[in-house]
Amino acid sequence: MHDFLTLAATRRSVRAYDADRPVEPEKTRRCLEAARLSPSACNAQPWRFIVVDEPALKDRVAALTSGGILPMNHFTRQAPVVVVVVQEPANLTSNFGAAVKRKAFPLLDIGIATAHFCLQAAAEGLGTCILGWFDERGVRAALGIPGRSRPLLVLTLGYPADAERPKKRKPIEKIAARNAYASPWPSG
Amino acid sequence: MHDFLTLAATRRSVRAYDADRPVEPEKTRRCLEAARLSPSACNAQPWRFIVVDEPALKDRVAALTSGGILPMNHFTRQAPVVVVVVQEPANLTSNFGAAVKRKAFPLLDIGIATAHFCLQAAAEGLGTCILGWFDERGVRAALGIPGRSRPLLVLTLGYPADAERPKKRKPIEKIAARNAYASPWPSG
Repeated sequence: MHDFLTLAATRRSVRAYDADRPVEPEKTRRCLEAARLSPSACNAQPWRFIVVDEPALKDRVAALTSGGILPMNHFTRQAPVVVVVVQEPANLTSNFGAAVKRKAFPLLDIGIATAHFCLQAAAEGLGTCILGWFDERGVRAALGIPGRSRPLLVLTLGYPADAERPKKRKPIEKIAARNAYASPWPSG
Repeated sequence: MHDFLTLAATRRSVRAYDADRPVEPEKTRRCLEAARLSPSACNAQPWRFIVVDEPALKDRVAALTSGGILPMNHFTRQAPVVVVVVQEPANLTSNFGAAVKRKAFPLLDIGIATAHFCLQAAAEGLGTCILGWFDERGVRAALGIPGRSRPLLVLTLGYPADAERPKKRKPIEKIAARNAYASPWPSG
């Protein structure tokens, strides 16, 4: 597999979807499988992915990503599927490490698993957008998420209806260094 | 690109390295490039990757992942390269969202970027291991990391010297659900 870089470049945050084109369940399953295979601190796997594709429920969850103090994310209503990524209680060793090192390992873990999900989606020709801004209590109520679990991210999933845009990223010498913080990785 | 699932299955946490086989700099560069392309909340890109391949400095950083109250991670000395992933201050919109939603977006972001790095490494035939347990003050001092930045993860990078093992993961019906938290995704 030599073209992961191409896939990483292809994956983008899609904010317009073909509302009439459903997502094949086997594609969603492969996205879940990619997430399932991802690594986590102490192998805690502190995640649960709730796929929401029942139309009225999906619209209800989608609406919870809009409004509030900022009018944003209206494209979530277009996406035929939303996926709520839930943070689950981690295991003892992960919790011990997180407490001693003051580092929220489950957030790092869920970032990794979410990346796997979205990369597999891109490999399937599907678009995703990762949303951290939503009505957490509303999502919890809509999906029956219990108290010790926390809905952390909402992903949109569907076929893109927008055009590709060039990515805006810092150049490599601004985000990489060699042998010291202040020695930029040589560009070019 | 249809074999991302294969890549996700190939990537594993490598805990034994060929200490005599260096990592080609162009491979490291492509890992950095994959990380650079990854998404982040409000496109903050709150990360810096410090590649440590100067042997004495690398040994010094590697030693900071062992010892303390737990005797672990001795394989880090074998790896010809370690990469310190540094959390950088995020931008205003990301910080605002994180504060309002009580959610540490930069940790999610760094999880995603680290996944990209490790997946590209796997595509190059390289092994990685993601370590969250290390002497943060020691790493900060060794690499001159300033106060507003935080070394969050240490990655080992090198050619594997161990055998593949089957992954231990929860089955899909334990980590995925459909339209309600308590409705397991159908297995099989």
